[in-house]
Amino acid sequence: MNTMATGLRIDGDRLWQSLMDLARIGATPKGGVCRIALTDEDRAGRDQVVQWMREAGLAVRIDEVGNVFGRRAGTDPAARAVATGSHIDTQPTGGKFDGNYGVLAGLEVMRTLNAHGIQTLAPLEVVFWTNEEGTRFTPVMMGSGAFVGVFGAEDVRLQQDGAGLRVGAELERIGYRGDVACGDVPGGPFAAYFEAHIEQGPVLEAYDMPIGVVSGALGQQWYDVTVSGMDAHAGPTPMELRHDAMLAAARMVDAVNRIAHDEAPHGRGTVGHMQVLPNSRNVIPGQVKFTVDFRNLSQDGLDRMDRIMHDQFAQLAARCRCTVEMEQVVKFAPCHFHPDCVDSVRNAAEQLGYAHMEVVSGAGHDAVYINSVAPTGMIFVPCKDGISHNEIEDAKAEHLSAGCNVLLHAMLARAGLA
Amino acid sequence: MNTMATGLRIDGDRLWQSLMDLARIGATPKGGVCRIALTDEDRAGRDQVVQWMREAGLAVRIDEVGNVFGRRAGTDPAARAVATGSHIDTQPTGGKFDGNYGVLAGLEVMRTLNAHGIQTLAPLEVVFWTNEEGTRFTPVMMGSGAFVGVFGAEDVRLQQDGAGLRVGAELERIGYRGDVACGDVPGGPFAAYFEAHIEQGPVLEAYDMPIGVVSGALGQQWYDVTVSGMDAHAGPTPMELRHDAMLAAARMVDAVNRIAHDEAPHGRGTVGHMQVLPNSRNVIPGQVKFTVDFRNLSQDGLDRMDRIMHDQFAQLAARCRCTVEMEQVVKFAPCHFHPDCVDSVRNAAEQLGYAHMEVVSGAGHDAVYINSVAPTGMIFVPCKDGISHNEIEDAKAEHLSAGCNVLLHAMLARAGLA
Repeated sequence: MNTMATGLRIDGDRLWQSLMDLARIGATPKGGVCRIALTDEDRAGRDQVVQWMREAGLAVRIDEVGNVFGRRAGTDPAARAVATGSHIDTQPTGGKFDGNYGVLAGLEVMRTLNAHGIQTLAPLEVVFWTNEEGTRFTPVMMGSGAFVGVFGAEDVRLQQDGAGLRVGAELERIGYRGDVACGDVPGGPFAAYFEAHIEQGPVLEAYDMPIGVVSGALGQQWYDVTVSGMDAHAGPTPMELRHDAMLAAARMVDAVNRIAHDEAPHGRGTVGHMQVLPNSRNVIPGQVKFTVDFRNLSQDGLDRMDRIMHDQFAQLAARCRCTVEMEQVVKFAPCHFHPDCVDSVRNAAEQLGYAHMEVVSGAGHDAVYINSVAPTGMIFVPCKDGISHNEIEDAKAEHLSAGCNVLLHAMLARAGLA
Repeated sequence: MNTMATGLRIDGDRLWQSLMDLARIGATPKGGVCRIALTDEDRAGRDQVVQWMREAGLAVRIDEVGNVFGRRAGTDPAARAVATGSHIDTQPTGGKFDGNYGVLAGLEVMRTLNAHGIQTLAPLEVVFWTNEEGTRFTPVMMGSGAFVGVFGAEDVRLQQDGAGLRVGAELERIGYRGDVACGDVPGGPFAAYFEAHIEQGPVLEAYDMPIGVVSGALGQQWYDVTVSGMDAHAGPTPMELRHDAMLAAARMVDAVNRIAHDEAPHGRGTVGHMQVLPNSRNVIPGQVKFTVDFRNLSQDGLDRMDRIMHDQFAQLAARCRCTVEMEQVVKFAPCHFHPDCVDSVRNAAEQLGYAHMEVVSGAGHDAVYINSVAPTGMIFVPCKDGISHNEIEDAKAEHLSAGCNVLLHAMLARAGLA
């Protein structure tokens, strides 16, 4: 850890300035960013980051789904690259930091090494992945998913947005259809991959910790639920003769919450969407549709939540003289990041003197996919009130700098100094 | 009860035919009726019923809010009228029987007396009240409310629909602005008022009873409720750090149900409408708005429901780290029909040999307003599956005939034979 001893640190002001510069592209009146994947704004954002990569001396390559890689050469011709990155597409009312931080922190690592004339044994790469947000084109985490082979590149290129425009055509239109095959990395697969990201949750702030050492990501199972009873006039229908789909659904919401609490600390259960029919104040609802989002760190735990939900929902529906249908619509397996990479992050935080704690990611990230093809780790920094996917998303410059310093030293630990 | 002894009965086929004839005006493809108050369809329906009234020899008068009265003279010049009626306006997707049955049952009573050459001491009237449904112009039960002075006639005439058209102008356009002052009845207030109606609920059918002797109507208190928490990402936000407005609202729905059950047999509690924000499957809802419809037969009971709701909602919100606001938006006092009129209905059913049970109306009816100015009673007959305000609303001809026979003999008992 000679770099640690020399006190090598990133330039926090430069990092902040780059974040603010990139946030001007697609800036919204409320202080957020709207830079949806493969729009003109995304093109402008990509052009800016590619220009910065070139100015930092990186060799840029683009793959067939528009993932962009900037490589800083190493001295060991046999060494595989140590990579970092995230995404620069945003939600329609997104913030300045989600994704952008991970990409620009990677760029800042390169700039810092350039400024200090430091050479690494392994090449270093900074990447931005196409369409992480999935807001215009599904699925989410499209670019990283194609990179690891979860989706076929051609299938991805055929995906359409609401207006019928295809990913492939939009990539060509904005000039980001590359010729590199998905998953190809010069010299072989990444030796390691790190992703720095704002937490998008309230834990680090609640514990006043600048650094989260991310050990894994929760698995997710999402469901569409339909409760069917019978519409009836709220006045003339006695309580004991009702088939009240709203009452059954309400008790199911409570059950979702209890099921998640019973899986503490990692269980999550959320009913975010509900649609009531006919939704009239003096009519007992005949049908209620809602969603369930279950998350847990183990597949056993998710299976248990699934089983208990099915049992309890059936009972709750029957007790209200209703029926219930449940359909699983999304499934992501739990992810455990590579112990070596988790250790590299923890060691870097420790030696830099930053307070840190082990956390798990509740959200999906490109790193979760990359973990399936390369040893991977993540670094979280706090964001204000845990708010993300929102124009008021905010983070402190000192935390962003701390996370970037951890990234720098974790990458150097994996890449080795020349 | 010499009429009973003579076996005087209405003509069930004629009643059914009139119901089917009227249902052709505004008929919908699904077998229902759309004859919204003060539209061209309402005019056509009014014209048809007025023509039938005149053909039955009734003297027709129209008041300043469009209520239409058809009078059959009595022999006692000092006797006040015994009246019956209901409404002929419908919901946008209404049925053939709601309201229409009460008006045409009254007409059938007149036709029956004509056919048998029977004279009564007191005059008899059949009425249809303007805009009972309240679907185009608020408030509901507009005509009967103006008749009893709950609303000023001029205020009613100034009410606007969604297109800015006023009740007064629409009454003039369709030819139903009368010159009789609201509430004026020749010879003085009604001696009694009866209203026959389909039950609009499942009780009579569940007990296999053709006749419901209606002792009163539930009071109603309606509320708008807003639960405020904080939007957050469903993944990264641990259960114990959430401000989940959906969870708090769900527990409130359950509480509404328990509060109503604790007020058996007359308590009703319904959450018919719910709106979730932002209503995205992987976002913990930051705000949920819903409605509460409480009904009970005593004001004490309604006050108790109100108090318990306020206490429990505040506790449930606090336990979910949310806040709650409750606003009462509608209040109708409970109604107890006049014992003499309730007895007349019960006696008629008894002597006609119809199985009957005492019921309370869960819904509002014009009769509830008329009860404040004249002794009033109601007769319920079953409707299929308790369904009303629906194009599939249905009722059996034998039940409609039974209710009409009860109406005939209850009216004769109050009016006296010449």
